[in-house]
Amino acid sequence: MADVIGRRVEELDTPVLWVDLDALDHNVATMVRVTGEHGVDWRPHVKASKAPALARRLVEAGAVGITCAKVGEAEVMAQGGVADILVANEVVGPQKIARLVALAARVTLCVAVDDEANLRQISDAASAAGVNVDVLVDVNVGADRCGVTPEAAPALARLVLDLPGVSLRGLMGYEGHVMGMQAEDKEAESGKAADVLHQAIAALRAEGIEPRVVSGGGTGNYWIASALGALTEMQAGGGVLMDLTYGERMKVPGHRQALHLTAQVVSTKTPGRAIADAGWKAMGMHTGLPAVVSPPGLSVRGLNAEHTILDRTDESPVEPGQRVTLVPHYSDSTVLLHRQMYAVRDGRVEEAWPIAAAGMLQ
Amino acid sequence: MADVIGRRVEELDTPVLWVDLDALDHNVATMVRVTGEHGVDWRPHVKASKAPALARRLVEAGAVGITCAKVGEAEVMAQGGVADILVANEVVGPQKIARLVALAARVTLCVAVDDEANLRQISDAASAAGVNVDVLVDVNVGADRCGVTPEAAPALARLVLDLPGVSLRGLMGYEGHVMGMQAEDKEAESGKAADVLHQAIAALRAEGIEPRVVSGGGTGNYWIASALGALTEMQAGGGVLMDLTYGERMKVPGHRQALHLTAQVVSTKTPGRAIADAGWKAMGMHTGLPAVVSPPGLSVRGLNAEHTILDRTDESPVEPGQRVTLVPHYSDSTVLLHRQMYAVRDGRVEEAWPIAAAGMLQ
Repeated sequence: MADVIGRRVEELDTPVLWVDLDALDHNVATMVRVTGEHGVDWRPHVKASKAPALARRLVEAGAVGITCAKVGEAEVMAQGGVADILVANEVVGPQKIARLVALAARVTLCVAVDDEANLRQISDAASAAGVNVDVLVDVNVGADRCGVTPEAAPALARLVLDLPGVSLRGLMGYEGHVMGMQAEDKEAESGKAADVLHQAIAALRAEGIEPRVVSGGGTGNYWIASALGALTEMQAGGGVLMDLTYGERMKVPGHRQALHLTAQVVSTKTPGRAIADAGWKAMGMHTGLPAVVSPPGLSVRGLNAEHTILDRTDESPVEPGQRVTLVPHYSDSTVLLHRQMYAVRDGRVEEAWPIAAAGMLQ
Repeated sequence: MADVIGRRVEELDTPVLWVDLDALDHNVATMVRVTGEHGVDWRPHVKASKAPALARRLVEAGAVGITCAKVGEAEVMAQGGVADILVANEVVGPQKIARLVALAARVTLCVAVDDEANLRQISDAASAAGVNVDVLVDVNVGADRCGVTPEAAPALARLVLDLPGVSLRGLMGYEGHVMGMQAEDKEAESGKAADVLHQAIAALRAEGIEPRVVSGGGTGNYWIASALGALTEMQAGGGVLMDLTYGERMKVPGHRQALHLTAQVVSTKTPGRAIADAGWKAMGMHTGLPAVVSPPGLSVRGLNAEHTILDRTDESPVEPGQRVTLVPHYSDSTVLLHRQMYAVRDGRVEEAWPIAAAGMLQ
């Protein structure tokens, strides 16, 4: 990939994923500023971007560390030079717990826990290996996915304090159900999620336990959740890239579109249509369809596996080879399909970022 | 991966993709038999399976070669030992045409063409390199994606015959629009697609050109299309793995479910639910949700990025660590997310197949 540095984005073969660095830098600065204004540390999730080079960039910009979804993601990020990682999900089973503990010997590591037996297994493995794993007690703040009730949090927190190999960092409550809501509901439901966390915090304090960290929030509500006083750490990270899900559906304010996918027209024989070479094997479509940035006169009618089906909305001639720049509907379901993305400024490739955590990771 | 051979599938960490070899062998034999009964050669598409080891197995079972969607897929399959490849899409632009020509120096290669300028570029590159690229003239049989009209096919076929570096193999017409139709419509619309191909064949013959190969068909209609007399080669390949799209939606008859994904419960704290560790980053969901094979008492409520949201439909206790075996809704949108799948017989891993063509390929 090194030979592409300095080239114009138009020279890269298609389909190609690229990031507008001016927009990215603006988004990063915005997230640092908004969280910082409320005294909330920023620990961006890298599940959408999956590139260690970008993760390091976020830490250099002021993030206190990163958030990962899985042990496999954390392993890739540690290998890529990130030194402080939260795995914001339960890590279950002897094989993954062994990998978690091995990782804790190399980086500062924290994991979410909602089950006593699971916690004891992590404690056993960590103490046997002579390492420490930090723990956030996962609280169900309304997503009804993982996490204990606020009432059950103190017992689990107490057990963390009592067991070897594990240290209590605090609480986690991810309000995933809130992200896609309409503005009014989102304000109200973010408040309810924060209330649940406040209950859990109070329950811990009633037993003399102080959570150093309370972690939550996503790109869909980070500007709201940062202001609610429950969180000390914000997990929102996808907003650095942006997409139609974050921009149009979640109405994230003040961000710019950084992530782009450029495709190429491969057929123009069907009247009124143009067919490009990027389908749902290049851009996830379960949330919706991508949008055309350029050229004018084309719009997305649908995606097949390997084809963008474009309507030609005017009489402009389009021939095979015409490049078409798109905004993916959802970065999370797009980036993981690719092996690299290119960081572009003023139309030229400044860096090539391997998407080292692409695909399904255990 | 070699150290997993002989292990029980229950020992593999999750999420894990695996293939029941008895079911696969049955499906392969079925597709060989059904196409063979009609004198149609089987050239299975490997876009769903993406594993060279499986592609080689299909050739050993009687396939005349394989079908790929992209140059990148063909490169991986050639590297993996497949010697006869159809790229069943238009290949556009100087970079991909250069790769196509380089590949034609190593394997028997054929490509779909629907545009004169594109054909001339392939001819120029192939003749400059001193290689031959076989060509199928792509005909639009109703999908309104790529392909020329039957009336325009002879002129393009004639040009293939006149140009250096390219040889006319015949015609292609992929009836992608038919696959998901209800049974009655599918019969009728497969017939219409075959009629278009018959028109194109007749148009070529009227100019003294005999298409040696006429290629089309998919898993959703292969038993119908094989009997219609237009095709000499059947592209259907996904039916060797099977999934809910092929089985429940497309009603493919006589196949067994070979592809499975085993996940693991990671949280049981929300009443009435169990949360497992495979979401839409392990199984594409734009066509629908996976189904639970085992254990009984669980059903899929939804998928998040990294979580299966399961309803517990009875009072059976489920704890973290419980394995859950699923059938993906669509193999095409599932396999490409993984890096390997395991070939399992009688509950034990017989082979490990790298999914070498996973992810977005150019």
